[in-house]
Amino acid sequence: MTETITRAVAEAMDAGDALGGCREWFTLPPGVIYLDGNSLGALPRTTSDRLARVVEDWGRDLIAGWNRHDWIGWPRRVGDRIARLIGAEPGEVIVADSTSINVFKLLAAALELNPGRRVILSEADNFPTDLHIAQGLRRLLDDAIDLRTVDARALPDALDKDVAVLMLTHVHYRTGAIHDMAALTAAARRAGALALWDLSHSAGAMPLALNRAGVDLAVGGSYKYLNGGPGAPAYLFVAERWIDRIQPALAGWMGHAQPFDFDTTYEPAPGIERLLVGTPPVLSLAALDAGLELFEAVDLRQVRSKCIALGELFRRVVTQECGGHGLRLASPADPEHCGSQVSYAHPDGYAIVQALIERRVIGDFRAPDVMRFGFAPLYVRYVDVFDAVLALRDVLQTRAWDQPRFRLRALVT
Amino acid sequence: MTETITRAVAEAMDAGDALGGCREWFTLPPGVIYLDGNSLGALPRTTSDRLARVVEDWGRDLIAGWNRHDWIGWPRRVGDRIARLIGAEPGEVIVADSTSINVFKLLAAALELNPGRRVILSEADNFPTDLHIAQGLRRLLDDAIDLRTVDARALPDALDKDVAVLMLTHVHYRTGAIHDMAALTAAARRAGALALWDLSHSAGAMPLALNRAGVDLAVGGSYKYLNGGPGAPAYLFVAERWIDRIQPALAGWMGHAQPFDFDTTYEPAPGIERLLVGTPPVLSLAALDAGLELFEAVDLRQVRSKCIALGELFRRVVTQECGGHGLRLASPADPEHCGSQVSYAHPDGYAIVQALIERRVIGDFRAPDVMRFGFAPLYVRYVDVFDAVLALRDVLQTRAWDQPRFRLRALVT
Repeated sequence: MTETITRAVAEAMDAGDALGGCREWFTLPPGVIYLDGNSLGALPRTTSDRLARVVEDWGRDLIAGWNRHDWIGWPRRVGDRIARLIGAEPGEVIVADSTSINVFKLLAAALELNPGRRVILSEADNFPTDLHIAQGLRRLLDDAIDLRTVDARALPDALDKDVAVLMLTHVHYRTGAIHDMAALTAAARRAGALALWDLSHSAGAMPLALNRAGVDLAVGGSYKYLNGGPGAPAYLFVAERWIDRIQPALAGWMGHAQPFDFDTTYEPAPGIERLLVGTPPVLSLAALDAGLELFEAVDLRQVRSKCIALGELFRRVVTQECGGHGLRLASPADPEHCGSQVSYAHPDGYAIVQALIERRVIGDFRAPDVMRFGFAPLYVRYVDVFDAVLALRDVLQTRAWDQPRFRLRALVT
Repeated sequence: MTETITRAVAEAMDAGDALGGCREWFTLPPGVIYLDGNSLGALPRTTSDRLARVVEDWGRDLIAGWNRHDWIGWPRRVGDRIARLIGAEPGEVIVADSTSINVFKLLAAALELNPGRRVILSEADNFPTDLHIAQGLRRLLDDAIDLRTVDARALPDALDKDVAVLMLTHVHYRTGAIHDMAALTAAARRAGALALWDLSHSAGAMPLALNRAGVDLAVGGSYKYLNGGPGAPAYLFVAERWIDRIQPALAGWMGHAQPFDFDTTYEPAPGIERLLVGTPPVLSLAALDAGLELFEAVDLRQVRSKCIALGELFRRVVTQECGGHGLRLASPADPEHCGSQVSYAHPDGYAIVQALIERRVIGDFRAPDVMRFGFAPLYVRYVDVFDAVLALRDVLQTRAWDQPRFRLRALVT
């Protein structure tokens, strides 16, 4: 029989938490339990100063800032910080544009690197923008390529001789389910396909080993676990063996071999810089760099262990406190197969999330019926998880959610 | 006979300058004459506070910031500020991505809007990235389209029945030459082509009238005259008559009709939002908005008049002071046909610019031999122009530029 979990248990877990001190690195609103760092990460304490400094540099050095502060080198330098987090080498990652645009770049590249094959294979309920981008590319290419989507379990069998690239999101945005990156990448390779991974929901929440897994291409956002700020620039990874074989479809001057020669004929830069397009967003890069700097002192294995422990605690306290209210676990049963979130389905999930937000417990909702609770291990405590479940229990028991004002859908959910 | 222009003449011009007070809106380094606002605009005094506020909002409101501060609406709201500057209507402009990526979006759109035609026509020495993007698109489409480039004067005759879209930069980055937007747009229309204008070197420096000229599509950067900061996000314009007919090639979730329904099938948003792709860069948008806000109090006709007057003063003092040193005017002879810069060619232009920078007169150099002097009328004074020419005269007379350290090309010039 399982022992009852009390708040004291959670407090004891916090007391023994090797990452407990990291919370001080962030500015968090008092009295709020923030379980949505998987959507928008919290504000590092260092970000304000970093932004203030880059603005001061702009004001003082003006155009000379590009050389004096190496702004021109930031996309790669900040990319190198990300490389360390995802098991890539320096020079294989660059910060640029949005995740969506980077998907476009790398899908176009993959199709060209794998001539004679025309299919993009993906999961049917992959994050929408990855599929939208593939649909847009197919349309642009007048259906010369195809997008094939299947359920996760059917992926290996769908890897036939027509598949040029397998495009998957490593951790599912709604359920938190983790794909086996190494196994699926190996399966893709055996089938003659490239593997393109979207790391938006995993980088910064667990160790990744792109090169060890033989991954060809990857993209990711930086405003979730990497704490780069709302709409922070994204990144992309290209395995070293492919970089110089890519002829960018989005061929912009910052990807040119000699951008400041102002040559009107495009010639790609020799390294990962060829996947740049326009001028680097210096202010945003400064903010992102502040977020990434925090990870220099962090062991991602500890981060992953804490993710799992937070998730397990959440599940166990929900089981203990919230039975009989129709919650259905929407995440993998095994926490080892789940990213840094736990999701529950409920027909009134949207209203329940709103009622929780009124109690200052911030999760989010994903259509059609999923409540997501995310655990960013650098700033979420075990007591937060415990208290959040008690708030959830209260909302369910009192039917606090059953009010018209909680049923109005806001624009961004 | 022309009277000698003394510094007192320039001082008198400043005293009578209706825009003289605008300089106070900016933080400028003391002792520097900044004639490179056409490359990177100066720092508005309000930018720091604006950024500090948005960072504070992020830290306090976290995910709720998207609704509470309408971050999600900023690309359009900031776009509306730009619309006013370029003669467009609210809802025809949106802030997104980089100029290069916006060129890609609109070239792809133009080719589809004008079926049966396959040629992109442009000027042979258009700004490189516009041509690079067209080259990348041609390659992606397996040469199903073509890029035709001709000298500026040959453009009207090159508008034949194969041309789908005429793509031009309104003000030439190197020479400052202004295209007749209305005449060339009308010529394109008569020939059955769409007109796509790059406004990077004109918006904010002169009144523009896109709709009056019948322009179909436009793009522009915001880190020059609009003072959005290094690498600030770009914008695009689509004439209202075309918006709902565009099926975006870069089809990302932020351009979806219902992004937060997480529908896996792309369906474009009803308005200009369909040309969004990824998540809006909130921090950068805040900085850009601070830059644009300054223009609310500015009459662009006065701005244009001052541009011309600053340029004329520069030319006249150069003629008066710098004869016999091999300077060749690389801008149109008539200031009315020139944007907010004056360019001179000189075989040692690069070294001369470096020697001027050492004297704290900041212009820039564009290959192969052009020295650019830009006049951002909100903060450049007539005495700055006068003093800059005296510094140039000094550098030329003493051959101060003729030193090895001035010949080493920096990465960004």
